[in-house]
Amino acid sequence: MSQQKLNLDKTDEFGEDFEITATDSTTFPPTYLVIRVHPASKEEAVKWLVGKIRGKKLLGGAELVVLRKPYDEDGLEFHVSASPIKFLEIAEEMELVKRDKHGQMREFTVNDLENFLVDGMNVDDFLTSAERQAIIRHELENIRALPTDIHVPGYPFYSMCEGQSVLHKCIQCGIISSIYALHDQEHLKKLGRSWYRSVFQKQPLDEIKIYFGESIALYFTFLGFYTTALLFPTFLGFVQLLVSIETLPVFCIFNVIWVTVFLEMWRRKSNELAYKWGTIGMTSLGEPRANFRGQMGKDPITGKLCPQYPRYKTYLKMYCVSFPIVIACLVGAYIIMLISFWMEDQIKYNPETWSQDLLLLPSVLYTALVYVMNCYYRKLATFLTEWENHRTQSQFDRHRVTKLILFEFVNNFMSLFYIAFIIQDMEMLRSQVATMLIILQAINHMQEAVLPLLINVGFAKISQWKNGWKNTRQTKSKQKAFEDSRYSREFLETIPAIDPSDSRLNQAEQEGQLEIYEETYDDYLEMFIQFGYVVLFSSVYPAAALWAVINNVLEIRADAFRLCLVHQRPISRKVKDIGAWQRAFEVIGGLSIMTNCGLLCLSPHIRSRMAHKTDLEYILTFIFLEHILLGIRYLLHIAIPDKPEWVRVELAKKSYESRQALKHEKALKSKRYLTRRFNTVHSKHPISGPALGNK
Amino acid sequence: MSQQKLNLDKTDEFGEDFEITATDSTTFPPTYLVIRVHPASKEEAVKWLVGKIRGKKLLGGAELVVLRKPYDEDGLEFHVSASPIKFLEIAEEMELVKRDKHGQMREFTVNDLENFLVDGMNVDDFLTSAERQAIIRHELENIRALPTDIHVPGYPFYSMCEGQSVLHKCIQCGIISSIYALHDQEHLKKLGRSWYRSVFQKQPLDEIKIYFGESIALYFTFLGFYTTALLFPTFLGFVQLLVSIETLPVFCIFNVIWVTVFLEMWRRKSNELAYKWGTIGMTSLGEPRANFRGQMGKDPITGKLCPQYPRYKTYLKMYCVSFPIVIACLVGAYIIMLISFWMEDQIKYNPETWSQDLLLLPSVLYTALVYVMNCYYRKLATFLTEWENHRTQSQFDRHRVTKLILFEFVNNFMSLFYIAFIIQDMEMLRSQVATMLIILQAINHMQEAVLPLLINVGFAKISQWKNGWKNTRQTKSKQKAFEDSRYSREFLETIPAIDPSDSRLNQAEQEGQLEIYEETYDDYLEMFIQFGYVVLFSSVYPAAALWAVINNVLEIRADAFRLCLVHQRPISRKVKDIGAWQRAFEVIGGLSIMTNCGLLCLSPHIRSRMAHKTDLEYILTFIFLEHILLGIRYLLHIAIPDKPEWVRVELAKKSYESRQALKHEKALKSKRYLTRRFNTVHSKHPISGPALGNK
Ligand SMILES: [Ca+2]
Ligand SMILES: [Ca+2]
Repeated sequence: MSQQKLNLDKTDEFGEDFEITATDSTTFPPTYLVIRVHPASKEEAVKWLVGKIRGKKLLGGAELVVLRKPYDEDGLEFHVSASPIKFLEIAEEMELVKRDKHGQMREFTVNDLENFLVDGMNVDDFLTSAERQAIIRHELENIRALPTDIHVPGYPFYSMCEGQSVLHKCIQCGIISSIYALHDQEHLKKLGRSWYRSVFQKQPLDEIKIYFGESIALYFTFLGFYTTALLFPTFLGFVQLLVSIETLPVFCIFNVIWVTVFLEMWRRKSNELAYKWGTIGMTSLGEPRANFRGQMGKDPITGKLCPQYPRYKTYLKMYCVSFPIVIACLVGAYIIMLISFWMEDQIKYNPETWSQDLLLLPSVLYTALVYVMNCYYRKLATFLTEWENHRTQSQFDRHRVTKLILFEFVNNFMSLFYIAFIIQDMEMLRSQVATMLIILQAINHMQEAVLPLLINVGFAKISQWKNGWKNTRQTKSKQKAFEDSRYSREFLETIPAIDPSDSRLNQAEQEGQLEIYEETYDDYLEMFIQFGYVVLFSSVYPAAALWAVINNVLEIRADAFRLCLVHQRPISRKVKDIGAWQRAFEVIGGLSIMTNCGLLCLSPHIRSRMAHKTDLEYILTFIFLEHILLGIRYLLHIAIPDKPEWVRVELAKKSYESRQALKHEKALKSKRYLTRRFNTVHSKHPISGPALGNK
Repeated sequence: MSQQKLNLDKTDEFGEDFEITATDSTTFPPTYLVIRVHPASKEEAVKWLVGKIRGKKLLGGAELVVLRKPYDEDGLEFHVSASPIKFLEIAEEMELVKRDKHGQMREFTVNDLENFLVDGMNVDDFLTSAERQAIIRHELENIRALPTDIHVPGYPFYSMCEGQSVLHKCIQCGIISSIYALHDQEHLKKLGRSWYRSVFQKQPLDEIKIYFGESIALYFTFLGFYTTALLFPTFLGFVQLLVSIETLPVFCIFNVIWVTVFLEMWRRKSNELAYKWGTIGMTSLGEPRANFRGQMGKDPITGKLCPQYPRYKTYLKMYCVSFPIVIACLVGAYIIMLISFWMEDQIKYNPETWSQDLLLLPSVLYTALVYVMNCYYRKLATFLTEWENHRTQSQFDRHRVTKLILFEFVNNFMSLFYIAFIIQDMEMLRSQVATMLIILQAINHMQEAVLPLLINVGFAKISQWKNGWKNTRQTKSKQKAFEDSRYSREFLETIPAIDPSDSRLNQAEQEGQLEIYEETYDDYLEMFIQFGYVVLFSSVYPAAALWAVINNVLEIRADAFRLCLVHQRPISRKVKDIGAWQRAFEVIGGLSIMTNCGLLCLSPHIRSRMAHKTDLEYILTFIFLEHILLGIRYLLHIAIPDKPEWVRVELAKKSYESRQALKHEKALKSKRYLTRRFNTVHSKHPISGPALGNK
């Protein structure tokens, strides 16, 4: 024990020691990220990049460990890692919040390491796999251009400005062709056994968080929470089929209460997790994202040097440019939808002009068009949000996702609104909702899991065969490595090479060819659309919840399978909540009150049961119902606190302790200052000392 | 300067010194609070109480300075104050947040005093008048019963439990007949000159805060902010009279935007003030109020000993008892209103049975009944909230005010809703709103300011005459003081007496007879009801805003005058926002969308202009308008951040600094521990020392 501590005190020496011995590939730590350089990249640029990654912090480097693939027929491939002590140092710098021995969540410091090691825990187990990966990514992204880096060496036309992220510049210029994380095969297998392979067990959420990071663990927690919550409307849906039609408004009330309570409880749950994961303190004033542009300056909060960009400019861009553009796109999408309906009507009601075989054409055309528009709109939204220049990654994600949600809302729900309230064809509405929930979700599963599985198996066969061939070539090419390369031998020899027999080489090649997992956006979107179908039209299609539950039980395992086997390992992300999705779900919840009241009001059955009322009275009844429901929603929203009591207490406790510490620090400083002053007075006038009190 | 500091270091001696010299009334500090003991109180109890007030902290006392009135024909009167150093000590204990030399808001500590004294500031000016008063009140309220205090001495049937506030117990038992603060005549005159005497100047809000404390300063800031904001609907009201009736929905939209933006901006403003006043950190987990009951235990946050009461019990009481009772009261009030309308109808439409002279009777009866009900309901609400046992004063206020607002809402607005939407008599509605805004507000001014002014002048005359008589008697009674008293001479002699010529004696007597200012509740209520009239029915009576502005300009000065001259000096209170009123105003804002859309829809003019639409289409138009407006409100609510950017940055900065301080403290401790351990190892095995690294 004490030896470990001694080593930790000798931080610097230990770190340096390590770097020297790292040339020997047997002691080389696991690869966390793989950087692939484009085959055509110039040596100067690559040399500069590697220099930055390995360089000293003081000279703007990242002090990471780099190893290269021994041969480079498809461009250089670098494996990036760090020494154990470096991980801890960066964790401190990143203000990683961890649970200490006494169960308190607080920022980790290397000096205080002992207090964070729960009994029996090894220093090597202290940081999770996802955290190590995030640390490497953080360091790579934070290699920023120095004032002397005017352009990328070898590429005079790729100019740079001070503070720009070197890594992102290299990706932008195509010098780096891809960056991806490597799976930890052993860990992955263990995770898989308790996850997608065991269908009837609880999800191993803690394990997921350790391996994939907070963002993905939060998605799966949400999925589980939502699926469990869906059991209530499923049950309600069954009961609804058994009772008379007049009681429908009662179900409507239950549904509103369910939606509101579910979302409020999720918010609590999410705050609880954020506290447990140490991410609850993340704010829009936190660490800037790598692509945040601005004049380098002192951060008003931390005093550290980082890009500064006035917030009002972001607001101006958002409200004066992005907002109108997004609105225009939404209106455009809406008009296209109307045209498709108009065309369908034309074909239907003019049988003499149009052949009835064409009846499906408009909706097929519309679906295709929506798909194309979606692709372009995604690019546009990403571009606009990037241009708005939000400071933190969470802000960026929130604004980007908000833009995307709006568009998806128009594309997915507007046609249903049109059918429900303009055409007022309830049969059509019901069949549409059913189709979407049953058929589309099934197709989705195919697309997401079954298809990639088949492709994967096929691919594995091919790659096995390929590898066999390559291995024989490798032994041949091992010696040839330097001759074949377009880079100078002197440069390549400065970077230690991985042993050609190392399994990581094969793994890196295989995983490099896997599909990239593009965050959790598509997964949340799927749930969002499903949620919309379930709650917006629950009064005409109460079975929706049942189908959603069936789908989600499959979805949990399919998504897990996909993440573990189909995709490249995603780079872990810290999040404190589900971001824009929370609000999006809440808005759907609010809209569901209006749509369901409207649907009930339009129902001919209910109208016939209330035949004694005039039209006006009838409509006013439903308007009254709607307002009562909105009121209930508001009351529930107020009555359920956002954070569980214990989280509030823990946070208040930490804040109190911190304030006390600040008070002590300031008082200590002040005392020191007074003592110094007092001493000075004494030493200057040693005689007047005793008389001081009477003066 | 350095002498001052030296004195501060010698805290304890200085404090004790002071208490001894305090027997000399010339050095006695200004009186902050006056405690009047009931003439019939037993000596044992009074002795015990005074002992507690003057007693040492360690023995459960408050260490305050007490002086008595020299004669006690109407019971004893104690003047309470504290020594200058005591004020500072308690300020530190109360975690008072002040602005330091560098403009940062942070908790004050005595050791760090120098950093809080802005250049040229004297130690005596450091705490404001309101703060000193609050400090004395805080200390008095926090004298808590020790385990040995089983009952009030002399009153065996007044049992006490550990941790109960001694002061509140004495008030409850009637031992203390009143506690009030004394005005600082000079300060008050200065404040008055720049406030109610100068009608066309800005309110001296900083001065108000210094003299009356945060709660009252916030009320006047709100009043000013609201009055300024009213200029917009006033202007809109003028324009509305000039244009055609079809444009009314446009005004409705403007009004919604105005209401929402006004309330959101006020929230920002209030957060800004809370930051500047150092109250933004107040939470429901803060310091418990004096009347908070519970088992004494360690606070989970601060670790200090204070009453603990499980929060779920409060929730249970709130939702299972208070909530149903309040609802029952509301329904009762509503039914009484309906009965009054029914009686009016009976009299109007049965001229043969009832004389038409009785037509006003139901509304007169109703008004009287409402007044009586209000009195009882207030007591009920206070009792229920007290019983619910909320931890902090702000929580208590919020829940009490919420109950009161609900009742006032039914009493003030339900009849108007009834006229507008059930009777649908727009003329009657308009005249009701106008009457309320013009006549009732004028009566209110009379009641609030003019009447008390007259009474005051008369009272001053009487009291002058009385004082003249008393003064002659005083000189007589000075020597007689001890003989007349029902208390023993030995006891009275332990408490220093004020010099009979001291002007404070007269002042205490006069101000003791003034009306008590019962917080800001009634003042906010007045504004709340006015706001309701202005926004709920703005589409039928657009001139409302103008009358409101006229009233408020007078109100600002009248309220100021009342506070300074008519009432006892209120005891200052720290608040961070306007509490339940913010939400109450917001709810009115939300309701105004519904009422105005409803009123527009009912307007026969608009109906005739849109005669081409069917009834259904016509109603749907307004429902659509309403939903659009609700949407706009929601968007504005999201788009306007609660706190100004600079406040967020400052708070984040402070939180960052505190966390850093905590980190350093923990690391320092850990280091010390390591060093100690290391030393121990060395000293135990001095020989094995050098070999330690290899072990
Ligand atoms: Ca999915
Ligand atoms: Ca008033």
